[in-house]
Amino acid sequence: MVGTVGYDTIETATGSREGILGGSATYFALGAGFFWPVSMVAVVGRDFSPDHRQWLAERNVDLRNLTVGEGPTFRWQARYDATLAHRHTVAVQPGVFASYQPRLLPDQCRADHLFLAGLTPTIQGSVLRQTHRPRIVAAGTIEHSIADYRAELLSALTEFNLLFLNEEEALMLADDNSLLRAGRALLGRGPQVVVITRGEHGLWQFGADGIFVAPAWPLEQTVDPTGAGDAFAGAYMGYLARQGRLEPATCRPAAVYASVLASFAVEDFGCERLRSLTWGEIDQRYRDYLALTDQHRPRWIAP
Amino acid sequence: MVGTVGYDTIETATGSREGILGGSATYFALGAGFFWPVSMVAVVGRDFSPDHRQWLAERNVDLRNLTVGEGPTFRWQARYDATLAHRHTVAVQPGVFASYQPRLLPDQCRADHLFLAGLTPTIQGSVLRQTHRPRIVAAGTIEHSIADYRAELLSALTEFNLLFLNEEEALMLADDNSLLRAGRALLGRGPQVVVITRGEHGLWQFGADGIFVAPAWPLEQTVDPTGAGDAFAGAYMGYLARQGRLEPATCRPAAVYASVLASFAVEDFGCERLRSLTWGEIDQRYRDYLALTDQHRPRWIAP
Repeated sequence: MVGTVGYDTIETATGSREGILGGSATYFALGAGFFWPVSMVAVVGRDFSPDHRQWLAERNVDLRNLTVGEGPTFRWQARYDATLAHRHTVAVQPGVFASYQPRLLPDQCRADHLFLAGLTPTIQGSVLRQTHRPRIVAAGTIEHSIADYRAELLSALTEFNLLFLNEEEALMLADDNSLLRAGRALLGRGPQVVVITRGEHGLWQFGADGIFVAPAWPLEQTVDPTGAGDAFAGAYMGYLARQGRLEPATCRPAAVYASVLASFAVEDFGCERLRSLTWGEIDQRYRDYLALTDQHRPRWIAP
Repeated sequence: MVGTVGYDTIETATGSREGILGGSATYFALGAGFFWPVSMVAVVGRDFSPDHRQWLAERNVDLRNLTVGEGPTFRWQARYDATLAHRHTVAVQPGVFASYQPRLLPDQCRADHLFLAGLTPTIQGSVLRQTHRPRIVAAGTIEHSIADYRAELLSALTEFNLLFLNEEEALMLADDNSLLRAGRALLGRGPQVVVITRGEHGLWQFGADGIFVAPAWPLEQTVDPTGAGDAFAGAYMGYLARQGRLEPATCRPAAVYASVLASFAVEDFGCERLRSLTWGEIDQRYRDYLALTDQHRPRWIAP
């Protein structure tokens, strides 16, 4: 997976954290590592803490290609509104990420599964050209790149088997105000599966098997939604990598496991909850989710 | 069921209708009639159209106790915002409903299933005293009565086996900002089941079997949300009446059928879609809903 590793400063109505470990690659890797080994392609500065490198290494994350550049680590500062539904980016200091050109290692070029976190279409293309036909190529988008590169992103959708975006991004990218139409339109642009995450309102997944709708795990309180989408994509891709194919029997449980991971991610600031999380907790919440959504289909309805 | 029958004037961003058939009893009866006969207790004025009486009679609705009072039929005028998430009541003219004291017929007093639409606690109490131990007593609330009678409504919750409310009503009645805490608190006040409808975001149901979460049927466009909650409650109660008991194996499919009915209700203004609706369409959408929400649970997870 290719993405960002950085230090985040996050303010919500209930608290704040300064300079905590973040970045799309971090959340993705923490989510994926529960299911399958992850090999990370990213850059940090000389100020990156050896402790943080150690945290990731202990979580099934291969860091051979987490390169150290000349300059400071990527930094991002954001503030959420009281409902946590909207966030405002206060400051971005790209640091070493500004001039970063990902170079995959030989074994990474031959990976079966590739995830590109919200990168510019140019960098996405440069990474894709280094690979040798991965079985599944997935991308996550960020609002910023949709605003600046909408046409390029749309025409690049044929390159992806799987696309992850949130509701706002899907509406913006499809330029529609109906999520149903937006999802169908994006699916028609090339990907085999389009996964639209809706935060506390669950997810809509569009694929060859039609639409899959799943509610979110109900939480009393969300502490910090940062990284939930990346942890979701990580768990989803990790599950796919473990199970094999891009088919309904795999993509639907992948989406449910991904929702479970995301529900943990938002329980604390940054990646604090993902760091303390155990497989036992994931397994329990997955089973609880099945019970919570069990419709007790009447016997007289054919399966 | 006891509630209102009236004429509504509704404005949305996309259109408007003047003086169309509405009222909680109308929507409830149209939803319930697909599952079980409904006996309606309500009042109209001399201006009530014989055609509308005929519409209801054709839909499995017993109108012996739809009395005709001296004065005009209940009228209500409302305007929705562009997202349809909020509505503003422009005018209410209670007409004959202002002095209405429901009197049940002898067979209605012995009904097994009773639904009280958003009535004041005083009228609810007066109806309950006329009945002989129904097996299931259910109530729907309206924001207006929560604002005016919160304490009475809370203490009356012990009288109900089943409570239907929407998200805003649940938060207001429980005086909480977490829907999970609110649902649990209301369940603790007496009802065996608390059903919280969330519009396009589905429903949360609280009961002895824990929480049941179900997404809404995805729609390209909602035309008019008026009456969706009452049609939901009608279908739910109709299903319960047909199936028998207040237990998870009945309440969960009841909630799904109710969601399906509500999804049809919002496809057109007022009760226009419910009038043209057929059982074949309901059955098909229920089956499609099962497919849409099927999680393809992996075989290695125990049932």
